[in-house]
Amino acid sequence: MQINISPFAPQKFPKMPEISGVEFYTASTGIKYKARPDLLLVSLAQNSVIAGVFTRSHCPGAPVKWSKQVLANNGAGGILVNAGNANVFTGAQGEADVKSMAEMAAKSLNSRTDEIYICSTGVIGEPLDLPPIAKAFDEGLDKASWRDAAQAICTTDTYLKAASAKFFIGNEEIHIGGIAKGSGMIAPDMATMLGFIFTNANIEQRILQELLSDCAKTSFNAISVDGDTSTSDTVLLAATGRAKMAKLSNINNKDTQNFKQALLGVMQDLAKQIIKDGEGISKLFSVNISGAQDTKSAKIIAMNIANSPLVKTAIAGEDANWGRIIMAIGKSGQKIDMNRLIIRFGRHLVAEKGARAKDYNEAILSKYMQNDELAINVDLGIGDSKFTVWACDLTHGYIDINADYRS
Amino acid sequence: MQINISPFAPQKFPKMPEISGVEFYTASTGIKYKARPDLLLVSLAQNSVIAGVFTRSHCPGAPVKWSKQVLANNGAGGILVNAGNANVFTGAQGEADVKSMAEMAAKSLNSRTDEIYICSTGVIGEPLDLPPIAKAFDEGLDKASWRDAAQAICTTDTYLKAASAKFFIGNEEIHIGGIAKGSGMIAPDMATMLGFIFTNANIEQRILQELLSDCAKTSFNAISVDGDTSTSDTVLLAATGRAKMAKLSNINNKDTQNFKQALLGVMQDLAKQIIKDGEGISKLFSVNISGAQDTKSAKIIAMNIANSPLVKTAIAGEDANWGRIIMAIGKSGQKIDMNRLIIRFGRHLVAEKGARAKDYNEAILSKYMQNDELAINVDLGIGDSKFTVWACDLTHGYIDINADYRS
Repeated sequence: MQINISPFAPQKFPKMPEISGVEFYTASTGIKYKARPDLLLVSLAQNSVIAGVFTRSHCPGAPVKWSKQVLANNGAGGILVNAGNANVFTGAQGEADVKSMAEMAAKSLNSRTDEIYICSTGVIGEPLDLPPIAKAFDEGLDKASWRDAAQAICTTDTYLKAASAKFFIGNEEIHIGGIAKGSGMIAPDMATMLGFIFTNANIEQRILQELLSDCAKTSFNAISVDGDTSTSDTVLLAATGRAKMAKLSNINNKDTQNFKQALLGVMQDLAKQIIKDGEGISKLFSVNISGAQDTKSAKIIAMNIANSPLVKTAIAGEDANWGRIIMAIGKSGQKIDMNRLIIRFGRHLVAEKGARAKDYNEAILSKYMQNDELAINVDLGIGDSKFTVWACDLTHGYIDINADYRS
Repeated sequence: MQINISPFAPQKFPKMPEISGVEFYTASTGIKYKARPDLLLVSLAQNSVIAGVFTRSHCPGAPVKWSKQVLANNGAGGILVNAGNANVFTGAQGEADVKSMAEMAAKSLNSRTDEIYICSTGVIGEPLDLPPIAKAFDEGLDKASWRDAAQAICTTDTYLKAASAKFFIGNEEIHIGGIAKGSGMIAPDMATMLGFIFTNANIEQRILQELLSDCAKTSFNAISVDGDTSTSDTVLLAATGRAKMAKLSNINNKDTQNFKQALLGVMQDLAKQIIKDGEGISKLFSVNISGAQDTKSAKIIAMNIANSPLVKTAIAGEDANWGRIIMAIGKSGQKIDMNRLIIRFGRHLVAEKGARAKDYNEAILSKYMQNDELAINVDLGIGDSKFTVWACDLTHGYIDINADYRS
């Protein structure tokens, strides 16, 4: 089967900064993918710190369970990622395989086994094929670029995803660079994909963790391809502390907040890149809920709209079928007042005061629906909270990819 | 666009019993559908009683709000249904239109306006085109068959849905007959479609309501096409009391329980007919959860599996991709113990003890997946509760129908 490249794929891989203290190594094990790197080892300078967020799935993979423990121990010895097999629901053997991978990485990085993060992505339930990974370590991994690293973590992705930011703390240039993978089984109940972000900033681990968790809410946790949450989602953020700066240890400090803004930018950029590579995507849309009684309610309504198969197919068909937005709001179970609800497609008023807008014009809306990027704007009119979700449409391409492809 | 008839469509319309005290009248208004009945009026004998269950959508249509009020007043004057426009999110005009419809029906049935149930199905948000309905009443509706009645309430349905049962109370033959419509926007948060069921039984309204609400849980509330809940779902159950029998007024009475069994059979039959006409269906599957800690948890897990786009596309593709079942269980948020979980496809063991089954055989499973009807059996192994959901796969047909068709 031919998988079409997303129409939102960028022209080229972005220019990425070097992060002092971070080095990439890759190998092509051939476990599932041929002639491309599928194993990534990240080496981190001594005294680096790592923050992490993980899937909330109640059936997490063995690598997730392992890495959560490494994080609990404040480990920052390195990161090993394999693509093609998620090592999920693989029992005691799966756990032993994770440990073996950590041992190989630790030996290679001259670190401790229990300080190595392991992340796996790919098919669920099949035993991991360990010998090709062992062989890659025996032969030695290759020093790799950002591009190689971004490639090594991909599965069904149709393009490589990377983003970066820089800003100054005093006279010191601070860099943040990250890569991510994901295009199906994307629904945020935390970070719903793999993402690895690196910075040279000098920052306390507990601050780093607080920033990562907070920024995940409005980036990786605010996207949905299909409402299906992966068993393997993991985002790790490593800070090498190589920048010449006082260690950030206060969340309210101006420099910490500047770091947070830059980090959020990188994370939202990566999150949108994931959605723009949503399986079968033809159109990207944002659901912008405002006037909600609280953020939680705004997010639930936004997700009900973003995940509705009827809304997603209408968008694919360029049909301004706003009745399906009403349906999705109604089924969300959240408090609403139909008479205060205002729906706009982009800037075009569609419905208000409990009915279709007086100057509703189907021709104008139909023309708007032909855009590649759409905004569904819903003002609930009952509070001050808001939330935005990014999503993609549901097309024949999604069926093509998922009816036959075992990912 | 050509909509293909469901492969599960029955060979012919079933033989249906006459229900003493119930008469159908239909008309072809041409509002949306041409050359077929799209307006149904049901006349009920004096002293009939009616029970009802309605959508839990927070954006219900004007007809739902009206009919809930009629039910609250114990009305049983008759039922008027139109297909093609759901009269939802139509503001004050929508409410006035419902009242006008009730006035027409009341005049025709020699009943009171506030005792007439109004049900509308079709597009959301467009003002109702009332004049063709008024014209139909002026010209007089035609005496109609079960078949005409079943046709008049349909929208995107590819076949007509009816079911019946009979049993005895003493020497008196009791009949239950019902019709239903629905094939998209089907996700049960109550009764997720239109259904009208009639019986000649003599039964107290409060008992009738209790039976209907209870049977809805494991019939209309246990099906899902797309996880999208309609704004207009309504099931009405009318009892004319024409049978010669003591009035049923005790829920625990043997005759009442016999009635319940027969009613449940009819409702489950109709519910399965709706799923078998799910938009774009190629395969029907049941998700049977057992060993759950409680029924609510079992239903949540079953619905997470039944509504997962990745599970549904795997079934369409005849791919025994059981990892996606693990994913769906994991994202449900319900308590599970991975080591006690047992998954079977039909009678074929797939996974147990936290891993793929020892004698897992992909060839056997792949052959099983070629069946038209499949059973996904999940034993959670942590309790005694169970729940079954019926669902259909997600195919190109669903995209065809919903990317372009405004229903």
